[in-house]
Amino acid sequence: MNYRMLGYLFGIIMLIEAALMVLPLIVSMVFRESPVPFLLTVAALIVLSFPLICRKPKDTRIYAKEGFVTAAGAWVLLSLFGALPFFFSGAIPNYIDAFFETVSGFTTTGASILTEVESLPKGILFWRSFTHWVGGMGVLVFMLAILPADNGQAMHLLRAEVPGPTKDKIVPKMRQTALILYGIYMCLTLILIFLLLLTKMPLYDSVVNAFATAGTGGFSVKNASIGAYSNPAAEWIIGIFMIIFGINFNVYFLLLVKRFKDIFKNEELRLYLLICVLSTIAITANIFDCFASTEDAIRTSFFQVSTIVSTTGFATTDFNHWPSFSKTILLLLMILGSCAGSTAGGLKISRVIIAVKNIFRSIKKTVRPRSVNVVRLDGDAISETTLHATANYLSVYFALTVLTTLLLSLDGFDLETNLSATLACINNIGPGFSVVGPTGNYSGFSYFSKLLLSFDMLAGRLEFMPLLILFSPSVWKRN
Amino acid sequence: MNYRMLGYLFGIIMLIEAALMVLPLIVSMVFRESPVPFLLTVAALIVLSFPLICRKPKDTRIYAKEGFVTAAGAWVLLSLFGALPFFFSGAIPNYIDAFFETVSGFTTTGASILTEVESLPKGILFWRSFTHWVGGMGVLVFMLAILPADNGQAMHLLRAEVPGPTKDKIVPKMRQTALILYGIYMCLTLILIFLLLLTKMPLYDSVVNAFATAGTGGFSVKNASIGAYSNPAAEWIIGIFMIIFGINFNVYFLLLVKRFKDIFKNEELRLYLLICVLSTIAITANIFDCFASTEDAIRTSFFQVSTIVSTTGFATTDFNHWPSFSKTILLLLMILGSCAGSTAGGLKISRVIIAVKNIFRSIKKTVRPRSVNVVRLDGDAISETTLHATANYLSVYFALTVLTTLLLSLDGFDLETNLSATLACINNIGPGFSVVGPTGNYSGFSYFSKLLLSFDMLAGRLEFMPLLILFSPSVWKRN
Repeated sequence: MNYRMLGYLFGIIMLIEAALMVLPLIVSMVFRESPVPFLLTVAALIVLSFPLICRKPKDTRIYAKEGFVTAAGAWVLLSLFGALPFFFSGAIPNYIDAFFETVSGFTTTGASILTEVESLPKGILFWRSFTHWVGGMGVLVFMLAILPADNGQAMHLLRAEVPGPTKDKIVPKMRQTALILYGIYMCLTLILIFLLLLTKMPLYDSVVNAFATAGTGGFSVKNASIGAYSNPAAEWIIGIFMIIFGINFNVYFLLLVKRFKDIFKNEELRLYLLICVLSTIAITANIFDCFASTEDAIRTSFFQVSTIVSTTGFATTDFNHWPSFSKTILLLLMILGSCAGSTAGGLKISRVIIAVKNIFRSIKKTVRPRSVNVVRLDGDAISETTLHATANYLSVYFALTVLTTLLLSLDGFDLETNLSATLACINNIGPGFSVVGPTGNYSGFSYFSKLLLSFDMLAGRLEFMPLLILFSPSVWKRN
Repeated sequence: MNYRMLGYLFGIIMLIEAALMVLPLIVSMVFRESPVPFLLTVAALIVLSFPLICRKPKDTRIYAKEGFVTAAGAWVLLSLFGALPFFFSGAIPNYIDAFFETVSGFTTTGASILTEVESLPKGILFWRSFTHWVGGMGVLVFMLAILPADNGQAMHLLRAEVPGPTKDKIVPKMRQTALILYGIYMCLTLILIFLLLLTKMPLYDSVVNAFATAGTGGFSVKNASIGAYSNPAAEWIIGIFMIIFGINFNVYFLLLVKRFKDIFKNEELRLYLLICVLSTIAITANIFDCFASTEDAIRTSFFQVSTIVSTTGFATTDFNHWPSFSKTILLLLMILGSCAGSTAGGLKISRVIIAVKNIFRSIKKTVRPRSVNVVRLDGDAISETTLHATANYLSVYFALTVLTTLLLSLDGFDLETNLSATLACINNIGPGFSVVGPTGNYSGFSYFSKLLLSFDMLAGRLEFMPLLILFSPSVWKRN
């Protein structure tokens, strides 16, 4: 383990967080709120990062394991310091609660311990939603986009943070890839803000809701989430953009360079859009009678499908009261998630495609034991390493879900609450069912459960390996 | 596909079922009940099997795919005919209900559509529990034990029916293996009957309850299941024997030939016993206050752990009212199941061990990309084929659970009912939670749901591949 380099990278990440916090600081001042919580945090970040970055390490080589440890460490650090403004401002008086809320923000989960948000300072709420935007595309990707790094280093860092399984990098140079990704992300966010303004949503609300949509996070500035605006146009726009941010960003790059054939070849994209359409139709048919107009039924169904499949977690209705069939579809969409290489969470559709194709391969192999079968995605062969990784991902996912559900049950809530809270956190969705449903929150859990769910959110966002690896003693040996 | 040979094997299996039905026929006559339902079924089996077995095929070679198709076909045939006595006697007036009950019997699930059993004829109830005993060790294993077959044929048939992943066959000769397995099975069942008689349980009840225990099935002749006897000694004995029948039968063979070292080396066995002890302690501590005496609390906890982990499904209490923590432990035990090569269902502990070790391997591989790591069980290396098969098993398990839960939700029951019914059927347990809990039953589901759950029970018992393979067109090509 190259500890020097690790410390140096952590220092840079702390400085980046200090820089990012200038934005909510400005918002605080614009709204004439106290800037002290942000100033204190920024000061702490700068002072503490100083010893880490003052001397650049001679040996800057990093490998896969350093990449994973950097990712895990960076996200924990960001959350530890990111929680301070909530704590200093008194918005969340307990630090563990503040930490949970911040992890939930950066991991774009959107699970909240707050029972009421509208009374909080605007600057604090801005920071809360801004963490979604930062976490959506990733902070290591951001670091790579703004700082020079050699291609090998960059690859290990990107791999540890970008949700997979992604088949190809956009361009050979990693730094350029990071720049393109953030460029697309920023443009889409700006377009969304502009469109929301057109629906007469106030500027502040448009910006924070756009952040939460782009990161597929789901923190809102209203107690009733997006439902509070009673703005059908905004619901349609946010609904469509949640789907858009759930698509692999490679697709937008291909769109820019006009490689339309490659877009059409993308099996994950086709299946994703098909699932969105079919789920919307099925739910609309199932809940049709509860709504006054057809538009209302379709919009509400589409919004819930979009908010759940993209793992955002915005609410416009309380689907806890929906019939069992619709609720089950939503539960499946929760588990499924969106596309690899997007800002969304969940298992990822490409992983499910690979797992299913692997099942078909084993059937073929049983029928004709001597045949050679390759699993293909978009026409390209999937390596045995990726197949193995996918299988292991599913095992870890299963094991973590089971273990968390068991430990949460010590708090005494019902099974539906515990299981859906676990899935909502591992998949970075936010709301679950029952106690943690769209109108509920996570404040009732014990501190132990909140820390456990924080771990799950980080593990889910980083796709397990970066956090799992920390438990392996051999990682900690010096180079 | 060797259709001739397949037909011949099916014919033999039908004759075996006819022979097995003589036992309940005798019981009917002893209790002076109408033997007609059994006589009619036996006649139908003999007449219909005649054209299949009258000419032995010249080409008797079978391969893996024929083995799987034979297993799938045999189990469906057994259930189709096995349902007839219920239907003919009017005990279950609807044939689909009777089919569900029979599949549940042969697959040792124990899920019932009957709301009341004590009024049914003794012969019918005998047959109902006897199907557990037949299905527990497997009907192909039985066929191999009594009929000569060459070693290659036998291997493919055994592999398709015995729950894996099993590492080794007991003795090189397959036929001898089958004989030893049934020998041990029969001895253990006889010991259990004898012990139950000692607790003053009536002979008839001792025999049928022993069948249901040995097969880890769970059909009882009392509406209140084992709880109806209010017989603590019998509860202890049945509790212990359910654990015993959840152990890999290879262990008993090793015990017979005094290879104690090999038994101690068995990781699955050690973990299984540890899980049973720990779960019992945890649940006892959790529910302690609800019971009058310590013995009562321990016995009740142990019985529920044993009945669930062995996927039997006998009841002595309604754990639906237990605290969330205990219920969650039971849910995890449901999923886990017992040992490979036993009569129990579930994922099997060795599969979980292999999956977890595979996760550790991938962590090691990430830390040291060039290291070579082998997954070992009981000290022996696990082949990549087995690792792949385990991963695929988990994927299919996951997919089938999700799909069934979704389709069941069309019937309008709550999520807890649908999910636990699905798990209870796939894992061959029987009772789930809520509507299908220990005091409930499956009668409320639609016919579609009952057929779907029947498929799940068969798929779970045969560990998916035999039924999945039927959907592959290339299986059906003539040799």
